[in-house]
Amino acid sequence: MNLKEFAARIGLSQTTVSRAMSGYPEVKPETRARVLEAAERLGYRPNISAQRLATGRAGAIGIVFQGGGRFGPHSSEFMGGLSTRLQKDGIDILVSTVETEEDEAAAFRRLAASKRVDAVILHTPACTDARITLLRALRLPFIVHGRSEAKKPFAYLDIDNFGAIETATRHLTDLGHRRIALINGDTISTYARDRDAAFRATLAACGLPLDPALTGHGEFTDETGFRLMQAFLASPEPPTAVIAGSMMSALGAMRAIRIAGLAVGHDVSLIAHDDVFPYLSPDNLVPALTTTQSPIRAAGERIGDMVLRMLQGEAVDTLQEVWPVEFVVRGSTGPAPA
Amino acid sequence: MNLKEFAARIGLSQTTVSRAMSGYPEVKPETRARVLEAAERLGYRPNISAQRLATGRAGAIGIVFQGGGRFGPHSSEFMGGLSTRLQKDGIDILVSTVETEEDEAAAFRRLAASKRVDAVILHTPACTDARITLLRALRLPFIVHGRSEAKKPFAYLDIDNFGAIETATRHLTDLGHRRIALINGDTISTYARDRDAAFRATLAACGLPLDPALTGHGEFTDETGFRLMQAFLASPEPPTAVIAGSMMSALGAMRAIRIAGLAVGHDVSLIAHDDVFPYLSPDNLVPALTTTQSPIRAAGERIGDMVLRMLQGEAVDTLQEVWPVEFVVRGSTGPAPA
Repeated sequence: MNLKEFAARIGLSQTTVSRAMSGYPEVKPETRARVLEAAERLGYRPNISAQRLATGRAGAIGIVFQGGGRFGPHSSEFMGGLSTRLQKDGIDILVSTVETEEDEAAAFRRLAASKRVDAVILHTPACTDARITLLRALRLPFIVHGRSEAKKPFAYLDIDNFGAIETATRHLTDLGHRRIALINGDTISTYARDRDAAFRATLAACGLPLDPALTGHGEFTDETGFRLMQAFLASPEPPTAVIAGSMMSALGAMRAIRIAGLAVGHDVSLIAHDDVFPYLSPDNLVPALTTTQSPIRAAGERIGDMVLRMLQGEAVDTLQEVWPVEFVVRGSTGPAPA
Repeated sequence: MNLKEFAARIGLSQTTVSRAMSGYPEVKPETRARVLEAAERLGYRPNISAQRLATGRAGAIGIVFQGGGRFGPHSSEFMGGLSTRLQKDGIDILVSTVETEEDEAAAFRRLAASKRVDAVILHTPACTDARITLLRALRLPFIVHGRSEAKKPFAYLDIDNFGAIETATRHLTDLGHRRIALINGDTISTYARDRDAAFRATLAACGLPLDPALTGHGEFTDETGFRLMQAFLASPEPPTAVIAGSMMSALGAMRAIRIAGLAVGHDVSLIAHDDVFPYLSPDNLVPALTTTQSPIRAAGERIGDMVLRMLQGEAVDTLQEVWPVEFVVRGSTGPAPA
């Protein structure tokens, strides 16, 4: 049975049937339910090419990763959440990976020209991000995972990075720590700037100086956490506490602390930001890790929801969310050593 | 400058230019180099839609994940490798996630009908897999990550799962262990069947009985590893050694052993199969973990390479690889307790 026959059989136009089955909620819920029920009963399976012609929709959302090597645990949890939401509406994800910033811009141009996606997800934005200007110029709808400065409003979902680091730093100063280190992400991203700002502001509010030797930036890997922590411990006045930007950095930091013959939670307190990886729980580490936490999988799922609402016509300035971050105290933080 | 103008300018046909720039190696390397150099010099950027019309190629490879929830650390490492290779030829990856087996079949039908991908990657195959029959019927080129029984040859890349578990089991029996447990993957997949078979055969060769209470199957998560290990330890005759199918299962098993007041490597020896996650190194665990290892990221990269060769016309029976697995002894294995 083709579209024409199926539409005739249930007494609706081909366009209405296509829209009802396309995954985009542009028809009344009753109509949609009726079409889906009839398709199931009559064994009608839509031809996607015909459907795309009818609706003008690609049925896919794009996401670009710079550097295949960076497709890591954060990407996979985010994609898991995003795909969980999009699959409910039969929408696919087109993944492009590129090497450089210039290649990424070229990839967005290609995606816009080829009409292979209906919208894109922009992630890890910089404070001012040329990609936002580019996507507007290309008229390619987008949602930002994170935040950025821009003249006109755009849709985004971010977590409260400032609040997370403020809480973590305050907890450590309350425990009497005076020399606190920060392992942050790459310097150009907004989230890393927000975390730096919170760290600086909280230390200042507590009357503590910021020692540049005790802050470091880099990718969220075990390796970077290890390297930075070793450097902190080698400084003339090593820290008694450290805040790691990810679970992966925290693993490296723990290793460096252990190798130095020190005990986490006793000699050096440690707090990590946890994006919640089901296979890497802070409860399973020894000692269990104090964390600020926000599941990145849930963010992916929510962004999937927001992108569908945006394509349905919802205004971008109503599609802006900042999620609070939880704080969970476990065994890796304790009073500053005397 | 459009395709027509660019082709005229460098004195080649539009088809040759399209092919040279499409990412598929169907033109002579010299021609390709000449076209790419001229495009760079003259600032020509191809329009993908026009290119697809000219070459009949989608410029994307498809992959379907059953259950968004299963998009986990293995998927992300594999995708990282796959995309690293495909990006060199400007090929994207179209990710579809589905809920059920039936939905997966429907997704393959849609991908074939819509011509949005040139080939698909089939992963986690069963011993006899209906998806292989379906993909053949749909004439959708495919490469299998893993192995399966089928009448006609197909392209695949697998690791030597039998050899991995044989080596691990033999190492434990050499250390004097007589009660060895196995935490395996889901029962329908070929890799899990190969691992079960190797475990059974090696125990038999050593004259040891197989105790069904000491083998368990399930998803490769911390949770499953924990639950199965707790059950093994609660049995009337608990094991003195265990083989875990993944690093994630091993983390759960370690937790269960620790909670039972036992020491890994002393009271209970542990070997894990490690797909090599950069953020979860067996060297970083306490004690460091003895592993069989094969990087799943490298497999993704190689499969990207093989799919491009297949699309260039290489015969599927020359695109079949089985990779040996390394064995690395660390601190988590020791002599059987007296």
